[in-house]
This record gives sequence, C-alpha cells and structure tokens, in this order.
Amino acid sequence: MAAQQHCDSLWIGADIVTLRDGRYHTIKQGFIAVTDDKIVAIGPQAEAASLQATTTHQLAGGIVTPGLIDCHTHLIYGGDRSAEFEQRLNGVSYSEIAAQGGGILSTVQATRNASVAELVSSARQRLAHLLAEGVTTVEIKSGYGLSLDAELRMLLAARQLGEQERVDVVTTCLAAHAVPPEFRDNAEGWITLICEQILPQAQALGLIDAVDAFCEHLAFSPAQVEQVFQAAQRLGLPVKLHAEQLSALGGSGLAARYAALSADHLEYATEADVAAMAASGTVAVLLPGAFYLLREKQSPPVALFRRYGVPMALASDSNPGTSPALSLRLMLNMGCTLFGLTPEEALAGVTIHAAQALGLAQSQGSLEVGKIANFVHWPLAHPAELAYWLGGTLPCHTVYRGVIR
Amino acid sequence: MAAQQHCDSLWIGADIVTLRDGRYHTIKQGFIAVTDDKIVAIGPQAEAASLQATTTHQLAGGIVTPGLIDCHTHLIYGGDRSAEFEQRLNGVSYSEIAAQGGGILSTVQATRNASVAELVSSARQRLAHLLAEGVTTVEIKSGYGLSLDAELRMLLAARQLGEQERVDVVTTCLAAHAVPPEFRDNAEGWITLICEQILPQAQALGLIDAVDAFCEHLAFSPAQVEQVFQAAQRLGLPVKLHAEQLSALGGSGLAARYAALSADHLEYATEADVAAMAASGTVAVLLPGAFYLLREKQSPPVALFRRYGVPMALASDSNPGTSPALSLRLMLNMGCTLFGLTPEEALAGVTIHAAQALGLAQSQGSLEVGKIANFVHWPLAHPAELAYWLGGTLPCHTVYRGVIR
Ligand SMILES: [Zn+2]
Ligand SMILES: [Zn+2]
Repeated sequence: MAAQQHCDSLWIGADIVTLRDGRYHTIKQGFIAVTDDKIVAIGPQAEAASLQATTTHQLAGGIVTPGLIDCHTHLIYGGDRSAEFEQRLNGVSYSEIAAQGGGILSTVQATRNASVAELVSSARQRLAHLLAEGVTTVEIKSGYGLSLDAELRMLLAARQLGEQERVDVVTTCLAAHAVPPEFRDNAEGWITLICEQILPQAQALGLIDAVDAFCEHLAFSPAQVEQVFQAAQRLGLPVKLHAEQLSALGGSGLAARYAALSADHLEYATEADVAAMAASGTVAVLLPGAFYLLREKQSPPVALFRRYGVPMALASDSNPGTSPALSLRLMLNMGCTLFGLTPEEALAGVTIHAAQALGLAQSQGSLEVGKIANFVHWPLAHPAELAYWLGGTLPCHTVYRGVIR
Repeated sequence: MAAQQHCDSLWIGADIVTLRDGRYHTIKQGFIAVTDDKIVAIGPQAEAASLQATTTHQLAGGIVTPGLIDCHTHLIYGGDRSAEFEQRLNGVSYSEIAAQGGGILSTVQATRNASVAELVSSARQRLAHLLAEGVTTVEIKSGYGLSLDAELRMLLAARQLGEQERVDVVTTCLAAHAVPPEFRDNAEGWITLICEQILPQAQALGLIDAVDAFCEHLAFSPAQVEQVFQAAQRLGLPVKLHAEQLSALGGSGLAARYAALSADHLEYATEADVAAMAASGTVAVLLPGAFYLLREKQSPPVALFRRYGVPMALASDSNPGTSPALSLRLMLNMGCTLFGLTPEEALAGVTIHAAQALGLAQSQGSLEVGKIANFVHWPLAHPAELAYWLGGTLPCHTVYRGVIR
C-alpha cells in the first residue's frame, strides 16, 4: 500500500489542459495538487488516490488551463484618447491631431502630469478587465514619461500595481519609445540619457525586469537601439524590441544578436530575421490588436516561425493609441482570424510562450510539477472555445499562487 | 409657482446621451423621470425641481445611453462549432468539413435534436453576455430547424427566452435560411412549405414578428425570396433580408420594393439598391463580425448610405458559423475600425437605428418623453468610449422598463 502524500489543496473534476511543450496535452478528468504556491502533483484523477489534501475542490466539469500571461502591454498611462479616436473617424487627419497636441505626445503630457497614485488608479481599472478573464501575469512597459523622473514614476506605478493586486507584474523600461519633445533635434542626447541615467537608476531602484525599445523610422534606428541594448547588457538586464511593425529595418535580427527574450510585432520580419531569432531562442510576440486597429495588410510570417521553430506569443499591446484593448482573450480570436494561428498555438501564445517571452518559462506558463500554481477553470467543453468565441468575457475562476482569486 | 408633478423614479447626476434623431444630443447633467415603464420627462437637471419622485437615483457622474438593441442575431441553436473552427485553422477544407457532416447542417442536426428547454438554456448563456453590456432588446431568428416542427420550436424557444429574461425578444422566421437536406433538389418545394405552412402556422401561434430570407447564390434566388415576401405580406408581417453579403443579386432593391424593415450585410449593395432603400425607409443593418471572421475585403457602401440618408444599424449577427459573437459593443469598434463609421453613427446603430430596423422606433431606441424607460448608465466620460475600447465588458447598470435589472 502506497504511503499517503499530503498537499494543501487538491483540484479535481475537470480536464487539465497542461500546455506542456506548447501543446494542449490534455489530461482527461485530471487532478492538480498544490502545496504553498506550487504544483506538487498532476495527473489522471485515478492517480490522486494516495493524496491527502487539507482542502479538496470538486470542479463541476469544464477545463483548467494555465493562468493567462499578457506579455506586452502599455497599461500605465495618463489621459484618454477616445476623443482623438472619434476625431479621426470624423475625418480629422493625423497631422491636424498632432498640431492640436494630440497623438502620443498628449499621452506623454497627461502621464507626466499624473501622480504615481493616479497612474496606479487608472491602470487598475484597465487591469481589472484582464484579471476578469484569467490573467495571472502581466508585463507593463514605461515609455510615456520620456523624462528621467516620469519614466521612473511609471515603473514605480507598475510595481505598486503588482503589490496591490493579485497578479504578477513584470516591468519593462521602454524609455526608447519616442523622442521626447525636449530632445526633438537630439535623439542621440535622449539615448545617452537613457543609457547613462534612466536605466542605471531604474535598475538601482529595483524597478525593471527588462529593457525594450521601438525600432522604426519614426522612432529609433538599429544603431541607437544597439546603444540601449549595450547599456542593458552592462546592467545584466535582458532585452526585447518593438521591431518590423511597419517596415523591415532588421531590428528582430539585431534583437536576436543580443539574445533578446522577444521581438514584438514583426509584420515585416524577413526569413533571415526569423532564422536569427530561432538561433537565439527569441520569442515572436504577435500583436493582432494593433494590426487590426491600424488596418494593416501585411501579416507576420507565421509559416516561417513554424518552419524555424520560433515560439509565437500573443499579447494585448494594451495602449491608448493603437490598441485600447481590454481583453487578452480577444487576441486569441484575432490571432487565429487575422494571422491564421491555430487555437492551440493561440493558447500557447498566452501561456507557455508568453512566459518564455518574459523569461519565466521555468516557473510559469504550463501546468507541471514544480511550477507556480496559477490556473484558470473555465466551464467550457474544449479549449478551442477560448479562441472561438468573439468578444464577451467568458466566465472563469482563477487560482493565483495556489489560492482562489 | 409651478405645480409639483409626480413620477415613480428620478435619475440624476449623469450626462444623458439621448440619441434623438440618431445624434448624441447630450444633455449635460440631465435627469430622466420615469412612471410605470415610460419616460415622462427628461431635460437638464435644473428643470427637475418641480418633480416629486417616489425614488431618486443619484448617479455618480458618467453617461446614460438608451438600452442597446441587437437587431440581428441567430442566438438560438443546438450544438457547438468550436471544433470545426479549430479544424479549419488546422487546414481542413470547407468541403472536407461538409463531407463529415459539419458546417450549417451540423447545427441543423443538433437544433432538431434539442428540446425547446435545451434551446432556451443554451441560448440563455449566450444572451447573458449581451445583457451584461446593456442590451435591452434582442432580435432572434429561426433558420436552423428547417422543418415545420423544428422552425416552430426555435421560435417558441425565442419567445420563452423573452418571457424568462428581463429583455424584449423580437422573433423573426428565417425558414428560408438554407435548403434542408430533405429538399436538396427541391428548393421550390421548401419555399412552398414555408409560404403555405410554416409562416401561417407560426403567425397563428403568435410566434413571429417578422419574416427574413437569405438571398445568395448558395441559398435562395430573388424570385424565391419574393414568394416568401408575398406570403408574409398576405399575413400582414413585415419583411427583412440577408442581402448582398457575398455578391450583388439585387436583394436589397427587392427588399425595398416590399418596404422591408431592413436589408442586412450589404457588402455588395449598389447605388441603385441604396437609392431604393432610401425611398422605402429600409434600414441598412451592417454586420462587421461576419465580415471580420470571413476576412472579407469589400466593405458595405457607407458613403452611399450617408449620401442617400439610409439609416445604418449595427448588430452582432451572433451565430455559430460566421460570427460566434458574445458582444454587441465589440461591433461598435468593428463598425468604426472596419467600416469607417463614426462612434456616434455606431451608437445610433445599436440604439435608434436598430429600433427602426425592428419597427420599434416609436417606442424604443432613444431617450425621449413617451418612450419605454430602457437605459444604461456607464461610468465613462464620453460616449465615444463605447466604440473606442477594444473588447472586455465595460461596467454598466441597466434599467429595463423603468426598473434596475
Ligand atoms: Zn507595444
Ligand atoms: Zn444573419
């Protein structure tokens, strides 16, 4: 007779969609055993007989997936761009809006004017939508402060949000998002300030987990991005990059040379970029919300990512200008509908591959022994439904670090 | 001194977006006075002084809009097509899926096999998503029964849903949705059955408010549709039509000749169709969910609708094959993003113009004295936010027929 093994909580009664290796790998009528905040055993329910649990949660059917991970957001910002959205649809041009002080600079102005508490408070409302659909880890970037002080305040706000809410917040410094108005004719000066002051100070304060930049004609050149990457490297911080969204500058290949965790957007990535990403283990983070909202025509090279074995993640890119997204799950449908992902690839894209894009795949993103007990119970028959249903907020119950949220 | 006027309830503290004439026509800091289920007074709050209310609801800012109206859905059906969605994204062709009994015929089979109670129960779950975002009136079509018995059961299920839930359900007989397998080589026989048995019996049982058909190469010809319209006319029932979704057959012009309430889809409508619709007062119901999911390229002629003064409505088209939509509000964003509507046009499209598409504009769809007190309070600064936010379920409180739902 097997010795009784003890655990804090036992979850039974549902199918467990583990996402091990990025596939469904569903355990029909499975169990998950949790002690502290970790999964200590998982398998078919018949094998749970030797487990003694302090609390047993009998689920009434449905499926359990890993907690969802939104690995690319700009959730923290001041102000409101809905009026600008309305102006554009009424025929006001981008240049007229910019002349009125609109566009990204209006968000920069409002973000600079907001206190840390105000930034936390407005972001919390947007975050609540993500949490309601099972998100347990969210990445949040700076990049609307565009001054030493305001960038640090954005990052502090992101950290505080993570302390106040039952979700893991991963922070990324995206000071190289745009050239601030004060550096209009001196982008190099801004890059220098990022490398010599913003990154070192943010790092010293413990405010950043990674460093990002926006590599595009209207933002920063590959050479400028490389300076930022070198500064990150000196500080021991991993990098990622907004690359190849609107044109092919070779940013994703550059990111790969710096062993970036991810390159993001990638509509114009070439086969050489994809090969370089495969070699460096860089995740392709696809952002269908911005693709949809900008009515882009060129899709990211999904067939190449598959052929070269580059893991694909999906994220909301939640931001006030090009993707005011309140749903990560909608991105599953958009990833399938607009980019041709399978529902299984889409689900891997917001779980295990999203974890990989944050450097967290050792501890999150799939349901395996030793990983953090973040998971979601959905009263659904099949995981494909997560991508199938268009809009709405599917009912679910989330377990965050072993405890019902 | 003015005499005190009495009302059951008074709502103050928010901006009232009335949608009178299809425009915002916002009353800043307005009031709505309700007696029984009707609006008895509305205006700026200063003018509410002479009103004595049994109950006063002090709203903490935000906006009030009319209750949302989803004027085109196929919410009632049996079965589940998520597996088929997954197959298609894994490269299985439409013809292979059809050969396996998939596609619309799988929904027909499952619908025929479901009891009325089962049809009500599965539709209720989908309806709950629409209600959560402020829908107070929803149209539901038959069209997956495709036999006398099963069509009547679908319509009965829709009526029962309307009795059980706090929402107005408007029913439409869409028996002319597809040729049933039993009539594979005899579409005319099916049309005859619709005209001589299904419509008269459904009408005698009080199960239908309007009659619809699907005019397309893969469904019914204009001549066949005309037979259905004539039968509807004999029964005194208004008509509407699925027209010009995939090709230009002149269905919308035909619908206009029969003074149809609406013509729906309309991607391929011509200027002559639009002119005919303008003359007959037929509403253009645009369905961006299906357009998006089918990755269509040709948009409905929005500029022509504007030029000819054809009112545009927006609807979810919620159905298991081409628009498994759980959100009407997402259609506001899609109407703006994909079809270029303004946020104001989009909001009119799910309120006053949707009411008009159901023949209910005298009593619903805008906030005016004498209309039914269906309205929604949103903690938002501006009505454009209803179209701006991408996905999620915006928080709101709904008043249905004068009472908080
Ligand atoms: Zn971004
Ligand atoms: Zn339809």
